[in-house]
Amino acid sequence: MTTPTVAPTTDTTPSTHAQPVDGALPLPVLRNVADLRAQVAAWRAAGQTVALVPTMGALHDGHLALVRRGRELADHVIASVFVNPTQFAPHEDFDRYPRDEAGDAAKLASAGCAALYAPSVRGMYPEGFATAISVGGPSEGLCGTFRPQMFGGVALVVTKLFLQALPDVAVFGEKDYQQLMVIRRFTRDLDIPVRVEGLPTVREADGLALSSRNAYLSVDERARAPELNRALIAAAAALSAGALLEDVLTAARARIAEAGFGTIDYVELRDADTLAPITRVERPARLLAAAWLGKARLIDNVPVLPA
Amino acid sequence: MTTPTVAPTTDTTPSTHAQPVDGALPLPVLRNVADLRAQVAAWRAAGQTVALVPTMGALHDGHLALVRRGRELADHVIASVFVNPTQFAPHEDFDRYPRDEAGDAAKLASAGCAALYAPSVRGMYPEGFATAISVGGPSEGLCGTFRPQMFGGVALVVTKLFLQALPDVAVFGEKDYQQLMVIRRFTRDLDIPVRVEGLPTVREADGLALSSRNAYLSVDERARAPELNRALIAAAAALSAGALLEDVLTAARARIAEAGFGTIDYVELRDADTLAPITRVERPARLLAAAWLGKARLIDNVPVLPA
Repeated sequence: MTTPTVAPTTDTTPSTHAQPVDGALPLPVLRNVADLRAQVAAWRAAGQTVALVPTMGALHDGHLALVRRGRELADHVIASVFVNPTQFAPHEDFDRYPRDEAGDAAKLASAGCAALYAPSVRGMYPEGFATAISVGGPSEGLCGTFRPQMFGGVALVVTKLFLQALPDVAVFGEKDYQQLMVIRRFTRDLDIPVRVEGLPTVREADGLALSSRNAYLSVDERARAPELNRALIAAAAALSAGALLEDVLTAARARIAEAGFGTIDYVELRDADTLAPITRVERPARLLAAAWLGKARLIDNVPVLPA
Repeated sequence: MTTPTVAPTTDTTPSTHAQPVDGALPLPVLRNVADLRAQVAAWRAAGQTVALVPTMGALHDGHLALVRRGRELADHVIASVFVNPTQFAPHEDFDRYPRDEAGDAAKLASAGCAALYAPSVRGMYPEGFATAISVGGPSEGLCGTFRPQMFGGVALVVTKLFLQALPDVAVFGEKDYQQLMVIRRFTRDLDIPVRVEGLPTVREADGLALSSRNAYLSVDERARAPELNRALIAAAAALSAGALLEDVLTAARARIAEAGFGTIDYVELRDADTLAPITRVERPARLLAAAWLGKARLIDNVPVLPA
């Protein structure tokens, strides 16, 4: 059991309106569960629906695409910004993870987001907190091997956010494909009454998947980074054309290494729904990779369709 | 992670009306989540509130007291009957745990229960189920030591029942005091929007706590069984009067052993709210015990007030 070590307190931080930034509309910022529930209850009382877009902030156009999708699916969108300590291991980048609430609020308002929910760490994990969630199945292998703490932390914080807001629908990006499958799994297993929607990865013009961690890349690394995606696309095409998995993966790893990536955590083929390891593409599959480029651990994935 | 091994299926068991038994009113029996949610939604649409009483069946007057308390707290009471495999270890009494749905339905109807929810094991834990919940804090020690599988299983099934029904309030007996504290803990930690109410233990005239497992007692054992409660009451009185904990526990264990109990799993003093071990009674405390009498493992607990 991993219990976050945080100072004891009860969250009584008042909610506020974010200051307008660069002419963007101001956005209500809710900082505790009571204010969040009051806002959702007011919308529900008016017969309106709610979409939730959970984020860790440092928002980019990929996040804003989730907000726009949420607006298609519901009357109002709430985005949460919470850098969740329970999904980071001690050696990982919790402390240096980029944070910019004013900038995030301006972007969310411009995308039509109705409210920003930004709870405190102490509000989420008060004194005496003692509960953990573990998910097998889709969390096994891939990032689950290299970041063993992550998916339990994700399951815990997403369960809390779901049950705090009780939205009709929540929207997540396929960029974090394994995370999306883990969220679908525990949401179904725990009977959480929230519909989970996935949205295809938003990319730069050169194919690089948008990620808050791209900020860690140097100019030179940024130029090399799209090779991760290109290697996956080429590999997916070869697999659909009937090439042997082992040959395809060897070629993909070589291409990623040649592009200047350091450690390649994994390049793997999985079933698209269960994430079970597979060796042949007989139904929809997914090719997933994680590799280090300088100080950034980049992940990407692409669909692989049967021939 | 403990995942129950059950055959794959999707639960499509139709819900029914229980047959009238001995002239009792019939009771709607809901057998899947869709029917449960439809019933709750119908009541909500009429502005009415709902209490849930989770049970494992084999109902006795203690359970019916929970139903009656539920009726005081909400417009309608749903009782669930589900013998949950994930909270039993392989050597425990899952298979022989008493089951009597017709009898349970008649009792519930007579107590004013509005519906019985009786999901199947396969409906609760379908193929691919992969999620577990663990709770530290109040689940540590006591029954958590002797039945290490239990509280994770309880947390999982109660979370599912809460999120399936989303009642306004749920009622549990103080007979299972540690379980009640564990349920309060994860309900709060996961932000489950359900109020958890505890009700004092219902006892036979001679003090024996009502329990479905009392059915395992022989006539002779049944006559000896109330000594567990008497030993706890005497110990609580001694502690409130300032006696030393060690002396009190030694005397209590001796009295329980003299009554013919076999293995005494524990007799312990704990803080009444956190269940943290304590040695002196400076604020409300709880004295808890578990001991074997023949084939029955009996548990009991009593409040201990500061002098």
